[in-house]
Amino acid sequence: MNMTGHTKKLIILGSTGSIGRQTLEIVRAFPERFQILGLAAGRNTDLLASQISEFRPRFVYCSSADSKEKYISPDGGYRMIPLAELAATPEADMIVIAISGTEGLTPTMSAVRAGKRIVLANKESLVMAGETINREVKRNKAQILPVDSEHSAIWQCLEGKKQDIARIILTASGGPFRGYLPAQMAKVTVEQALRHPSWQMGKKVTIDSATLLNKGLEVIEAHWLFNVPFGDITVLIHPQSIVHSMVEFADGAIKAQLGYPDMRLPIQYALSYPERLPNPELPRLNWHQTRNLTFEPPDFEAFPCLGLAIEAGRKGGTYPAVLCSAGEAAVELFLSGRIRFTDIARFVEQALEQHQTTSNPTLEEITSAAAWARGAVTKSTSGEHQC
Amino acid sequence: MNMTGHTKKLIILGSTGSIGRQTLEIVRAFPERFQILGLAAGRNTDLLASQISEFRPRFVYCSSADSKEKYISPDGGYRMIPLAELAATPEADMIVIAISGTEGLTPTMSAVRAGKRIVLANKESLVMAGETINREVKRNKAQILPVDSEHSAIWQCLEGKKQDIARIILTASGGPFRGYLPAQMAKVTVEQALRHPSWQMGKKVTIDSATLLNKGLEVIEAHWLFNVPFGDITVLIHPQSIVHSMVEFADGAIKAQLGYPDMRLPIQYALSYPERLPNPELPRLNWHQTRNLTFEPPDFEAFPCLGLAIEAGRKGGTYPAVLCSAGEAAVELFLSGRIRFTDIARFVEQALEQHQTTSNPTLEEITSAAAWARGAVTKSTSGEHQC
Repeated sequence: MNMTGHTKKLIILGSTGSIGRQTLEIVRAFPERFQILGLAAGRNTDLLASQISEFRPRFVYCSSADSKEKYISPDGGYRMIPLAELAATPEADMIVIAISGTEGLTPTMSAVRAGKRIVLANKESLVMAGETINREVKRNKAQILPVDSEHSAIWQCLEGKKQDIARIILTASGGPFRGYLPAQMAKVTVEQALRHPSWQMGKKVTIDSATLLNKGLEVIEAHWLFNVPFGDITVLIHPQSIVHSMVEFADGAIKAQLGYPDMRLPIQYALSYPERLPNPELPRLNWHQTRNLTFEPPDFEAFPCLGLAIEAGRKGGTYPAVLCSAGEAAVELFLSGRIRFTDIARFVEQALEQHQTTSNPTLEEITSAAAWARGAVTKSTSGEHQC
Repeated sequence: MNMTGHTKKLIILGSTGSIGRQTLEIVRAFPERFQILGLAAGRNTDLLASQISEFRPRFVYCSSADSKEKYISPDGGYRMIPLAELAATPEADMIVIAISGTEGLTPTMSAVRAGKRIVLANKESLVMAGETINREVKRNKAQILPVDSEHSAIWQCLEGKKQDIARIILTASGGPFRGYLPAQMAKVTVEQALRHPSWQMGKKVTIDSATLLNKGLEVIEAHWLFNVPFGDITVLIHPQSIVHSMVEFADGAIKAQLGYPDMRLPIQYALSYPERLPNPELPRLNWHQTRNLTFEPPDFEAFPCLGLAIEAGRKGGTYPAVLCSAGEAAVELFLSGRIRFTDIARFVEQALEQHQTTSNPTLEEITSAAAWARGAVTKSTSGEHQC
């Protein structure tokens, strides 16, 4: 089955998260195709230990303090190395960046500068530093393959060609609060916000899907990945999450990619690209069940994060970094019960308003803007009463 | 705009029909891209004369007896030549075969044998002689670009690559009688059958869309165009005619091509391929209006022509030629008020049952089977009372 006769060596950064685990499912399904060269994880050291014993990587990184005692292998089968070094491992054919949030930026930059083929599931790195990343990708002959289902769909519709794009139509499920009025939204609980109607994902992205901040981040990600102006990116609510996104071409023809919401498909496509591999584990769309696909415009009033994000993307500079970081801090506060759901947008908006942007920022300016935004959100809350 | 710097010289066979006229609309929109080298038409000599004076072709064919007197140009600007010769004109970059029905086979074969790039709107030629045509295409380095909206959609989804196809999903509007019971169907009038809910087309194909015979022919056409087994071609009713067809790949990913039902898009794509040209005349899908796409399985009982066609395709030999020719004769009888709508399927079925097939037929055997089928249908009617 392996027509190239070559087993691809992978490094997975964030192997214990949702995308990391699903990436390992694909590796498990095609042992003759993919081999794990390195794994990196954070807090979930038990799962990391079990992944190490199953996949026998040569390199490991773990951010937890107690990691060394916990799982240095008795036979010395692997070596602990720093994250940046792991992301740039010379023997690796692909670096899967499945770290969520703003933390993904540094390892992504390491992989880009090492000229790697990067399977990118971390949208924040492109949102925060898209211009820098694109420049360094070109300079170092790196390659970025998207994993987000929407961006994978667009990539599949383009099949490597970026010309003739007239418009990108980014679909969104609308999350659990589609159709809610702003007044209803103020009362929603953490539990409700974590109950996504179509996708099983990590907590942060699930909350971002409920506020539509996630879709705003994806608009910025699409802008940098496909070099499309913000005015040519349209968000379309599609509650069934079957059409993963669409491209409209210069002649008006639209191409779409469809399938059940299952991240294993875009992960596998990025790993096997340019081939497609038959995998009995992946579901086939059943048209006897999927009889109705609906589409509607997003409600920018009820979901202010969407507009805030697109505006931050348009303005550029360090605004997108502030957007990501303020959003991250606000979601943490919401998840810990310290602020209301509607406060997420409010805090993001405040941070963006207060921010003094830098144009053409360096990476250091970007990370320092992100640090500032986190501080600004935390500071605002400490002055407020808890809900 | 013309990046190749080369104006493509076209021959249009069937220039006064629906596809022919729309092809000329595209030529008119891009005069620096396309030039009319030759035109061929049948009965509509007035329109042909006006097309000649507008597009100034060098070669003309007209099947009507009185054609010569009617429009030989006073300045001798063009030359009348036989159809087969026109289809093989050495100076032509593309031959557009927009002749409808079984008559399309002979000129298609001429163009194939001359190794031309063929823009094929005639499905009957591939249905009747797909195996022969494919063999001759290969031998003569000809090229077939599909124009049928469904096959163009599939072609666009594949973008030249034929590997990794798991399934073709051929969409069908379902025609004006979708949801009818067989008893209701017996009473439908010619006028009702000609009122297609989403497409403006010629009479023959409109009736074939009402019986779903057209979709059956398209299944066979897809089989030969994309080298996909019949078992991997699924027909799916989609009344809005927005999704023009889909391809499911080996990994389960589905790609679809969408747009309003407008034949100018697939015609333009075939003419401009591999480029896509911006054309303000072509409509853009408005997602504020298109909010609901529905899908349902076809009703093989109420629309027996669909099953008959697929079965004829599977059996091969001269059955598909009988299918086309019997269908054509039966539709003529229906349009002239001599048989009922439901008789179309009955006569097609009878012809297929009575036919003694030839396996691996020559072109002569194919055309003689078609002639036999036409006779068989006409003979059956003469013994019946008219409706």
